[in-house]
Amino acid sequence: MAAGIKNAVLLKGDDMSANKAFQDYYPENVAYCYGCGSLNKHGHQIKTFWDGDETLTRYMPEPYHTAIPGYVYGGMLASLVDCHSTGTAAAAMYRAEGREMDSLPPIRFVTASLHVDYLKPTPMGVMLELRGRVVEIRGRKVMVETNLTANGILTVKGLVAAVLMPENFGEGR
Amino acid sequence: MAAGIKNAVLLKGDDMSANKAFQDYYPENVAYCYGCGSLNKHGHQIKTFWDGDETLTRYMPEPYHTAIPGYVYGGMLASLVDCHSTGTAAAAMYRAEGREMDSLPPIRFVTASLHVDYLKPTPMGVMLELRGRVVEIRGRKVMVETNLTANGILTVKGLVAAVLMPENFGEGR
Repeated sequence: MAAGIKNAVLLKGDDMSANKAFQDYYPENVAYCYGCGSLNKHGHQIKTFWDGDETLTRYMPEPYHTAIPGYVYGGMLASLVDCHSTGTAAAAMYRAEGREMDSLPPIRFVTASLHVDYLKPTPMGVMLELRGRVVEIRGRKVMVETNLTANGILTVKGLVAAVLMPENFGEGR
Repeated sequence: MAAGIKNAVLLKGDDMSANKAFQDYYPENVAYCYGCGSLNKHGHQIKTFWDGDETLTRYMPEPYHTAIPGYVYGGMLASLVDCHSTGTAAAAMYRAEGREMDSLPPIRFVTASLHVDYLKPTPMGVMLELRGRVVEIRGRKVMVETNLTANGILTVKGLVAAVLMPENFGEGR
């Protein structure tokens, strides 16, 4: 809960109570994700919002999310890119279908592939900003490009191929 | 510490006391990495070893490293691929230079890019196995291909471009 509040994004003119994050619409069975599930008390609980045609997540890493002291761990940054991008894919699909995010059936995405370019070290102790942009929606697949900045400097670029979560996801293992 | 012991790999015929992981050779300033630093008590503390020409990490995710219940979070898997691969790059460079891993100066790598393909959901409660293979060493850059299996089934394929950590890494931010 603390993480949720800490990382909530207040957009200009928004009423916080009306400003539900994408992740707050996730059905319970996908709300335990370590990256973005609001019910995973050990997890990052990221919160993503529309900001015009872009999506926005702000996140402050914990002091122990270290690469070398003073800089944020790349696997953590990849996790932020991942969940920010699948959240973006879901929100974009609702928009493309002209649906509200609380309408049924729920739309959820899983990651088919994740690509991250580390352009510069990402400094610790700074509120990170991830901005996502839908590159393409084709059938069940959405390509999302996500830029991560720290102090306004682009440090990480991500590209995620997200696919609609199959109804039988995980069966038959 | 518990994680280190829990995830240690005992290879056939090895004497545990002589069987230091790649990460146990990392100098202190890079031993705080959340993914692989032995001094980061909050982190994953992965341990990687040579197994012939391949590298091997075994890791048991925590129960809260969830994607949807029953399956492992993709960002966590990306983190394992990341640190397994940079560790592999360092060990391969020592081998290529005919050097012992405790010789000076230390060789450490950072991730320039990380690509992960999620082929199948990765089940929870299973010891995961990552096997790395050096695709190419060119100058300061090492390409590492890493396959992650659960119960012997390939679920994740990773490709990492690792580059020698610059001496001034992180300066001038």
